[in-house]
Amino acid sequence: MQELPLSKVYQLLEPGPVVLLTTADKGRANVMTMSWHMMVEFEPPLVACVVSGNDYSYAALRATGECVIAVPAVELATLVVQVGNSSGSKIDKFDAFALTPLPAQRVAAPLIAECFANLECKVTDTDLVNKYNLFVLEVVKAWIDPAQINPKTIHHHGYGRFVVDGEMITLDSKMR
Amino acid sequence: MQELPLSKVYQLLEPGPVVLLTTADKGRANVMTMSWHMMVEFEPPLVACVVSGNDYSYAALRATGECVIAVPAVELATLVVQVGNSSGSKIDKFDAFALTPLPAQRVAAPLIAECFANLECKVTDTDLVNKYNLFVLEVVKAWIDPAQINPKTIHHHGYGRFVVDGEMITLDSKMR
Repeated sequence: MQELPLSKVYQLLEPGPVVLLTTADKGRANVMTMSWHMMVEFEPPLVACVVSGNDYSYAALRATGECVIAVPAVELATLVVQVGNSSGSKIDKFDAFALTPLPAQRVAAPLIAECFANLECKVTDTDLVNKYNLFVLEVVKAWIDPAQINPKTIHHHGYGRFVVDGEMITLDSKMR
Repeated sequence: MQELPLSKVYQLLEPGPVVLLTTADKGRANVMTMSWHMMVEFEPPLVACVVSGNDYSYAALRATGECVIAVPAVELATLVVQVGNSSGSKIDKFDAFALTPLPAQRVAAPLIAECFANLECKVTDTDLVNKYNLFVLEVVKAWIDPAQINPKTIHHHGYGRFVVDGEMITLDSKMR
């Protein structure tokens, strides 16, 4: 993994890919699948996300205030669904799905070696957690796997239907 | 436009498409381009979004508490960038870009005839507006254009680079 400048993090999440979210509580790592996230600020990068109280990861996220957002390419799509269909309350998902945890630098939650990007995050605002399970995270360190060239992400349309990234077009824009 | 059940709204926004957001204040309609949004609840559909204080639409959204999220297909990509590159403080964007406003049913902000989906929204929570310009919207009415078959959306990667929807894959999932 190679370090990614924090100023570029929004370019990974703004397009709305399905991501994995890892936590580690009392030495036990877990991972869930997530699609409800958005950028809130460019730099330092702030990300809002919804982690339901029904998700086993919720308690770990609340207790530790730390997580990693890992971005999988389409080659991991089947695995991403399996992670979403199972609960860390019953199995060790890293073990069950042969995901490789890597130590992060600023948080206890692990990076995922198979993902092309990993974002180390700290919970920075819990004001809307009770109402909406909405957490605001600050990305404090970002990593990218330079060996994965032009990774294609997936976007969930409900009930296991995913659109895969197609062509990239470039238009003359003043937008960041 | 044909009515879309509110229970299906998340299937449009969860994949992270670039959208247009319309407002109408004192009889004057405006439209901006937006990528920072996410689902917060399935039904009634709640959507969080960030509308910067620098956006001309911000004042209208605060004053009226209403907007429409319109989802454009890739054929509108050039226009979407033009909308994002200009300000309603200087021009009438509906006129300048030949967008067709249609009356909404529950809000004063207009639908956009050229978009394949239109979501009428009311601001339901402003608790995080001062801190992050983060609005929570409730979708109160949703419309889809049945004439646009399998529309492909676009996803922004920064500086005018957009990924266009590619193939749709279906995996065996227990996730809604």
